[in-house]
Amino acid sequence: MNDALPGWRDGAAKQAILDLVSRVCREGSPEFVPAADRIAVFDNDGTLWSEQPFYTQGLFVLDRVRAMVEAHPEWRTTQPFQAVLEQDWKTLGAAGMKALQELVLATHAGQTTAEFERHVEAWLAVARHPRFGRPFTELIFQPMRELLDYLRAHGFKTFIVSGGGIEFVRVISDRLYGVPREQVVGSSIVTRYEVRDGGPVLARLPEVDFVDDGEGKPVGIQRHIGRRPIAAFGNSDGDFQMLEWTTAGSGPRLGVILHHDDAAREFAYDVHAPVGRLDRARAEAPARGWTVVSMKDDWRYVFAFEA
Amino acid sequence: MNDALPGWRDGAAKQAILDLVSRVCREGSPEFVPAADRIAVFDNDGTLWSEQPFYTQGLFVLDRVRAMVEAHPEWRTTQPFQAVLEQDWKTLGAAGMKALQELVLATHAGQTTAEFERHVEAWLAVARHPRFGRPFTELIFQPMRELLDYLRAHGFKTFIVSGGGIEFVRVISDRLYGVPREQVVGSSIVTRYEVRDGGPVLARLPEVDFVDDGEGKPVGIQRHIGRRPIAAFGNSDGDFQMLEWTTAGSGPRLGVILHHDDAAREFAYDVHAPVGRLDRARAEAPARGWTVVSMKDDWRYVFAFEA
Repeated sequence: MNDALPGWRDGAAKQAILDLVSRVCREGSPEFVPAADRIAVFDNDGTLWSEQPFYTQGLFVLDRVRAMVEAHPEWRTTQPFQAVLEQDWKTLGAAGMKALQELVLATHAGQTTAEFERHVEAWLAVARHPRFGRPFTELIFQPMRELLDYLRAHGFKTFIVSGGGIEFVRVISDRLYGVPREQVVGSSIVTRYEVRDGGPVLARLPEVDFVDDGEGKPVGIQRHIGRRPIAAFGNSDGDFQMLEWTTAGSGPRLGVILHHDDAAREFAYDVHAPVGRLDRARAEAPARGWTVVSMKDDWRYVFAFEA
Repeated sequence: MNDALPGWRDGAAKQAILDLVSRVCREGSPEFVPAADRIAVFDNDGTLWSEQPFYTQGLFVLDRVRAMVEAHPEWRTTQPFQAVLEQDWKTLGAAGMKALQELVLATHAGQTTAEFERHVEAWLAVARHPRFGRPFTELIFQPMRELLDYLRAHGFKTFIVSGGGIEFVRVISDRLYGVPREQVVGSSIVTRYEVRDGGPVLARLPEVDFVDDGEGKPVGIQRHIGRRPIAAFGNSDGDFQMLEWTTAGSGPRLGVILHHDDAAREFAYDVHAPVGRLDRARAEAPARGWTVVSMKDDWRYVFAFEA
């Protein structure tokens, strides 16, 4: 029994976590890892908070399009904006990732970093999850929050490595997860330093700088952290390379995949999900020694409001 | 008197540092800054260690060209490599930054991140400073090391923000300055995740990814740290925007420029130096409230081996 992880039922997943920590913290053991190298990385969407029915940042994008249409009346008759405004999800879905990127750039660029942050804060204060009717900030997975705290209590430094926008995730990382802003890795657009009348600003430009997903995750980890993690937590094939890179190192390693199989308490989705597709990572998990967490069986509760 | 900074003589520069720390640490004061926001950023070359007669990483590049010529015999008759091999500094100087970049890419790409790090380690173990005859790792400014420790003892998180290569600086940052690898911001080339026979690697490609100098420094700070620093330390016009961005924030702020005016103990160089040019930043320092440190007058010693 371990009181530090009350949301985790006894079983293989919890045991794999406890084992890693006990092995790397045992001073004098050949498996001992100095605290500086106890790096743990966490995907965000679907790993630390819910990503259904859609990525939270995606819902922010849709609301920003609605909020910005007064200043952009041409959007009423221009795709993909028109589809958002008319809630025509079929057209939007068919337009694919290119349309999504266009919406992201239209809503995430054209302001300063400080202004963007205020937009995110203001939205989070009023937006509600369509199924749970709660602020998105309450949709974090409580057992994962316990895990973050548990790892940090054992000298680990915890990082978020998200396919989402780095400046979006930074708004919530400390408050929701106890992860400071400088320990967030994410996707980004180009920013430019400009000296304006009121002083210097960082202007956000409509150009993709870095996509922190799939093969980009180890690249982002190296760029921001500069060390290979010893533990990685994800939930989709976008986390495959992050787990592969992490667990290919020598010494004790832990790769964990959350499987969303709890339709009653959260959502059940899997191989063919348009968001959070989990196919290769789950298929290869046994051979690679990765731990698959069943949210239904391994967790006593999903959200703090049930706990 | 403050024993934490024995290398600093009493005077305006030392007082400005002590004042900032005492103001932001005073709980209950309107100027109090929570520890999480006590971010201090330091340029590396010329601010934390000597950059004369040339950037240390530049000397590494030259030695790498010499070491790699067996595998690249064509370099003997191809510029700018030929100039390096023949120590024809006049030709090399005339070829300018474009030639330097070509040399950097030729020596810094084409290997994995792990291999590059081994090259840097091996070089640092044998290379000696041309004037002092000591390893470059002994050429750090001892009063600055004291300052890093002093700030950390008061809850500051210290970052290096270098125009040099991020992976080069990471090799020394913890050992020399107590700054962990994940708190280094620097210039970078593109890396690509590849799965090879022996497992996954990060391959370094001959393409510039980011130049962390001048207007790039605030951009790099935002990318890696995500907060505006409250104190910035530099020595050249390449640090101008970093100081400008730092000191434009509200509340107590500190911008410090080291002036290399100590020919006896280190080097005296200034406005027209090809390396470490200091012109605009020094001229505007008084109006901007930045502190200029005279290494000759403000420091009791420069290097630990004199202390």
